[in-house]
Amino acid sequence: MEISENNLVESIRKFARKSNSVVRSIGDDGAVADLEAGQYVFAQDAMVEHVHFELSFMDPYYVGKKALYSNISDVLAMGARPLFYLVTAGIPARLSSGDILKMYRGMDRAAREFGVTLLGGDTVATARDLFIDISVIGKLASARYFGRDKAREGDLIAVTGKLGEAALGLKILKEGTGTAGMKNCIQRFLSPSPPYALWKELVKSDITDVMMDVSDGLVMDLSRMMNESRKQARIHVEKVPMPRQARQKGLEELALSGGEDYQLLFTFPREKLPAVTAIIEKGGAITIIGEVMAGRGVRVYRHGSEVASPKKGYDHFGGKP
Amino acid sequence: MEISENNLVESIRKFARKSNSVVRSIGDDGAVADLEAGQYVFAQDAMVEHVHFELSFMDPYYVGKKALYSNISDVLAMGARPLFYLVTAGIPARLSSGDILKMYRGMDRAAREFGVTLLGGDTVATARDLFIDISVIGKLASARYFGRDKAREGDLIAVTGKLGEAALGLKILKEGTGTAGMKNCIQRFLSPSPPYALWKELVKSDITDVMMDVSDGLVMDLSRMMNESRKQARIHVEKVPMPRQARQKGLEELALSGGEDYQLLFTFPREKLPAVTAIIEKGGAITIIGEVMAGRGVRVYRHGSEVASPKKGYDHFGGKP
Repeated sequence: MEISENNLVESIRKFARKSNSVVRSIGDDGAVADLEAGQYVFAQDAMVEHVHFELSFMDPYYVGKKALYSNISDVLAMGARPLFYLVTAGIPARLSSGDILKMYRGMDRAAREFGVTLLGGDTVATARDLFIDISVIGKLASARYFGRDKAREGDLIAVTGKLGEAALGLKILKEGTGTAGMKNCIQRFLSPSPPYALWKELVKSDITDVMMDVSDGLVMDLSRMMNESRKQARIHVEKVPMPRQARQKGLEELALSGGEDYQLLFTFPREKLPAVTAIIEKGGAITIIGEVMAGRGVRVYRHGSEVASPKKGYDHFGGKP
Repeated sequence: MEISENNLVESIRKFARKSNSVVRSIGDDGAVADLEAGQYVFAQDAMVEHVHFELSFMDPYYVGKKALYSNISDVLAMGARPLFYLVTAGIPARLSSGDILKMYRGMDRAAREFGVTLLGGDTVATARDLFIDISVIGKLASARYFGRDKAREGDLIAVTGKLGEAALGLKILKEGTGTAGMKNCIQRFLSPSPPYALWKELVKSDITDVMMDVSDGLVMDLSRMMNESRKQARIHVEKVPMPRQARQKGLEELALSGGEDYQLLFTFPREKLPAVTAIIEKGGAITIIGEVMAGRGVRVYRHGSEVASPKKGYDHFGGKP
């Protein structure tokens, strides 16, 4: 890279906009923020070149944007409004300063959308590959955190949006095949903005305190939730919302095990069904896909008959989950 | 790596010890902590294989330990007591789960020393190289943050401990030459514990609100402080504390531009000199090395004569600072 760390920090500094609660921003050993008393959420998540993306089909702008979205998604899934973020960029010599600033511009775009403020972070050289690691701090918007560990027997299971879009988008980008009619899926892979408006409705209506985001695939993520809650989930493939093309092309698997949609997965007690229905009737993209039972794990049904559990989803190390 | 992400997370989970203020720890989309109102410090800093370390001379235990120390150092340098940390580990397939757990054990050792609690983070695969990125959250211990931007004309400049130890230690490790009498330097490179007891004395005696840590080399770091404060520093080589071997071997340069000592660099007004002297007389390793003047930049003197400014220090991208 043709610029020095000092110069890069100067360029990045302009993305740290003023905020009343920020006492000291970029330019020091750390940042200082003035916080009210309360419960705060901390999430930290990375994206790595050749593992989570290839620059051949993902512009640095989208790498930055998606990395921040995925962390905001985690904070929302805990029931918190995102406030601040810090970024570590690991930068190989082959990247230009223009590429790096594009990445920060992508983050900045996502940050404006959710009203979060850049506090600082680090820029480091890497021997070969690009990585970006972001931490986001948020403040609980409700009385209790939204946890994976609170699903109760009898709860209904719901998701926002459609599942499998990002996986289908990635498939198209990798194969370089026709993108006609698939723009939504490609967009979901490159720029998976979490459903903030819908999240606010869920918080306002006090529907749930059991939530996670779908980042590694529905079955994998739901099995993690059931593991934490010590319960069993039963879901119905025909109810799982997915892009039309996934049903047509026999790619339903992508909706069950494809990751990176960053939709919200939650459970709620049956007495909240009228409140959920009210949101759906106002156009809220929520679909009920199953129910929580006694037991463990995830069981998948098609029109009432259990089907062999599909590949669970994305394990970051390719090990057997 | 032979284990899956789910299994690794289970293994890491045991390092997240109970803390009264932690409401939800590892196992969810994010962690939840209950915070009092006040000013909090956020720092985030990474170490990358082949850039900051080689596994050939740095065991993963020390990689983890040093990565946490360097972040704790940043938080102390802002005037805050460290409370929590989050870790992202970027893990290539050639590392064993044993290596990774060693890294977490190293962090855990440093965390116990400073009473900080693991909140969470991420584990991701990388195509080739190991990296570790840590964020630390602390709470201000004094009324005002310690900043690089507050040095005043007439202030004296001081450092804790010795400078150049880590650089000398690294040189020995790289060259594989005799380590007799150099254990301190090697230890400083591998395990640079920030001077917490001394920091507490400085906070208690209310000596300064101008501080940073020496991570990239004295001249480089001091020039950053002067840049933020819009002042000039004059330092005296013969006063700079360094290991005996550095003076003997004509390696004084390492004390001026060698990084990674994680000692504290601070300025203070002359009226605080009696309080500083009192700490020194009690055995506190503090050395006054120069003074702050009007102007800009850093000027280096040897027995009263200005010397050409040495190489400034470590720039993470090798650019010209």
